[in-house]
Amino acid sequence: MDLFFNPKTVAVIGASAHPRKVGHVIFRNFAEGPFRGKVFAVNPGADELFGHKCYKSVLDIKERIDLAVIAIPAEAVIEALDECGRKGIRAAIIVTSGFKEIGNHELEEEVAASLKKNRIRAIGVNCLGVYDAYSGVDTMFLPSYKLERPGKGGIAFISQSGAVGSVVLDWMAMMGYKMTKFISYGNATDIDESDLIDYLAEDPKTKAICVYVEGIKDGRRFYDIARKHSKKKPIVVLKGGVTEQGSAAVSSHTGSLAGAKEIYATAFRQAGMVQATDVEQVFDYARVLSTQPRPKGRRVQIITDGGGLGIIATDWLIKNGMEMAKMDMKTIAELKKQFTSYAVVKNPIDLTGAATTEWYKTAIGAALEDNNIDMLMIIVLFQVPMLTPDVVEVIIEANKERRKPIIVVSAGGRYSEVLKKSLEDAGIPTFSSPARASEAMRALYDYGR
Amino acid sequence: MDLFFNPKTVAVIGASAHPRKVGHVIFRNFAEGPFRGKVFAVNPGADELFGHKCYKSVLDIKERIDLAVIAIPAEAVIEALDECGRKGIRAAIIVTSGFKEIGNHELEEEVAASLKKNRIRAIGVNCLGVYDAYSGVDTMFLPSYKLERPGKGGIAFISQSGAVGSVVLDWMAMMGYKMTKFISYGNATDIDESDLIDYLAEDPKTKAICVYVEGIKDGRRFYDIARKHSKKKPIVVLKGGVTEQGSAAVSSHTGSLAGAKEIYATAFRQAGMVQATDVEQVFDYARVLSTQPRPKGRRVQIITDGGGLGIIATDWLIKNGMEMAKMDMKTIAELKKQFTSYAVVKNPIDLTGAATTEWYKTAIGAALEDNNIDMLMIIVLFQVPMLTPDVVEVIIEANKERRKPIIVVSAGGRYSEVLKKSLEDAGIPTFSSPARASEAMRALYDYGR
Repeated sequence: MDLFFNPKTVAVIGASAHPRKVGHVIFRNFAEGPFRGKVFAVNPGADELFGHKCYKSVLDIKERIDLAVIAIPAEAVIEALDECGRKGIRAAIIVTSGFKEIGNHELEEEVAASLKKNRIRAIGVNCLGVYDAYSGVDTMFLPSYKLERPGKGGIAFISQSGAVGSVVLDWMAMMGYKMTKFISYGNATDIDESDLIDYLAEDPKTKAICVYVEGIKDGRRFYDIARKHSKKKPIVVLKGGVTEQGSAAVSSHTGSLAGAKEIYATAFRQAGMVQATDVEQVFDYARVLSTQPRPKGRRVQIITDGGGLGIIATDWLIKNGMEMAKMDMKTIAELKKQFTSYAVVKNPIDLTGAATTEWYKTAIGAALEDNNIDMLMIIVLFQVPMLTPDVVEVIIEANKERRKPIIVVSAGGRYSEVLKKSLEDAGIPTFSSPARASEAMRALYDYGR
Repeated sequence: MDLFFNPKTVAVIGASAHPRKVGHVIFRNFAEGPFRGKVFAVNPGADELFGHKCYKSVLDIKERIDLAVIAIPAEAVIEALDECGRKGIRAAIIVTSGFKEIGNHELEEEVAASLKKNRIRAIGVNCLGVYDAYSGVDTMFLPSYKLERPGKGGIAFISQSGAVGSVVLDWMAMMGYKMTKFISYGNATDIDESDLIDYLAEDPKTKAICVYVEGIKDGRRFYDIARKHSKKKPIVVLKGGVTEQGSAAVSSHTGSLAGAKEIYATAFRQAGMVQATDVEQVFDYARVLSTQPRPKGRRVQIITDGGGLGIIATDWLIKNGMEMAKMDMKTIAELKKQFTSYAVVKNPIDLTGAATTEWYKTAIGAALEDNNIDMLMIIVLFQVPMLTPDVVEVIIEANKERRKPIIVVSAGGRYSEVLKKSLEDAGIPTFSSPARASEAMRALYDYGR
């Protein structure tokens, strides 16, 4: 499997000079991007591509090839695989579409047989392939001006759908979320979601695995593999096609069968996976699960400088089955002594619009000490007059000990977004909405149990 | 009421040279912002402020004053009101805090009595006051580098909480959402949410009214006023403190009483209001309700270029009680003729990653004609290779006739965001998440009934 993510030599079969061709973008990703290995262009119709020699066939390349990326019409794939087999290539990413997903089952079976015969493991067909933030492997055929790539981090993302996968990457890059690897595996002609989870579970850089699936190829195996790994590493799953109508749409899409909502929900839970219901939620959960310690219980203390947001957050925590922590009398007495009459020492602790960085430090410190509190939701409106940007440092410092989960809610515009990104970079999950933060805290609590 | 939003002359009582003082920021907003009227500084301790003469008292100003903005300590407010009364000022925004919200009920009652005695109508106390995108009135004491202001549009927003209100404005500005007026009314010592709804309902520029309330001062009046106006103009309400615990937090915040979730939900519905559960949802609903026609039914057709997002959207539409439209046989035959075998002509119509602008035009045109379709959800991943940015024009053109509601879902990063903003500017609501889009379509359907 490592050949897919850390190849030294890559052949792009179907590399093209035409800027709108898939093979064009993929070849340029390798030739001009951060990839540090060697890339070879294969295209019988050209002699040269961007100053690189162009080969008629992989068989003409002298060096050993670790990975072939196949971006040619469906009807030419079998022949290319035979050549890859003869060349001794063991790993192929087949981005080509036009198989099972449009009813062409026969050709897809031929591909599967050819892979076996030639002893090649393959990601695809009908996929975007791989983006590895660390090695620079990038077979996504959407140019980076249209689709940005996220930086290096701890979240892996496996997506059956190329479209879902790619827009999520673009969005992650914009949000400043970081990742290890992205794999769009399409029709799963050979390698499927279970193989990928099994591999990523052992990848030390990956701290959480996110999966978007429509249909699951081998349910039993998926369950066993997820169950085996989910205790060590959180696995967040989004299932497309949970309603009858959604399920019908699945069969038009990848030609796989989707099943009843309840069966999946139960199986996911029993396998120790965390099920999300929306794309944004997948990464809400992954960010919290991959960075925060498991809480001892469900008692949450809110610290806020905006009373209204504290109230909305309270409503949402309760709706999500969490409890409002009741601070120890000693903590209450201590905090009342420290704050002016403007701050409200209850739950939420409302530091009000007069809040200072020092007040946050005092309140957070007290909440971390108090044994009646399991988790902290820190709501910080950076805009209030007396609050200085170094409140970010106070929160980062508090999070370093990893004693209790800390989740930050901060709503606002560009000024807030900049400060939120500093928190994200330091491994503190941030949210714009108390609703989404509360759902993520619930997921962390459930996973901890 | 118009004096609050379109004053010709404004006196800022408490205007200050100290940059962290509330009165400093407010005075500068008027003096240096887009406000075209005349502003006067009142502060007994200074002679001049930024080149403006500084008055000891409003009584020293010769001109008639339409609006006084009061930003001085709580204990000095009564005297200032008496002076305003003698000067003949009829409207005051009192941003000063330190009243009912910290237990100081007596002083708040004195303010109320003084307002009556001096025949002054007031917004406040303990509020941010008013931001009017058209007239430039801006009493928000957070400087615009920390808190951006949204541009001119059709959404009005009333917020009991200053913090909720201000971060929402900042966020709206970032998202490119546009507005008419924002009013943070704080403790509602005089003017309350009902007065404001009554006023905004008659404001021709306001197409939808959004309200964040914690406690409602006079439930019966609120109900009657909402019911009177909600048929002509959508009113979206977010109630803070719907759980018992959230309600407890309300009483610490503004000192008002919040009530049982169910009672409020029923009352809002019967009054024809649309209830949101989260801040983002308020504006999701407002954007859709203020721009889109009422649908004839709940049958939604999805058009997508990403199969996976089509599936997730289908799941969410069904979860929200919508129906998947079944296209007329004629439409299906027509579309099948037009598209290559790669496009799937069902619901969703999946144009796949090969989608072109022309294909979108064909599919949208057919869906607008088909009587089996009530609403359109157009999912467009702008990133796919063959799609040109002028697909935005196609959607804007289709929306111009206002025959059926059109909602756009587009996930991604900066490239997508730019194109989404062109759609928003043309009055087409856009969403990143199929979940939020589906909830908003449901709200539109409910409102239509």
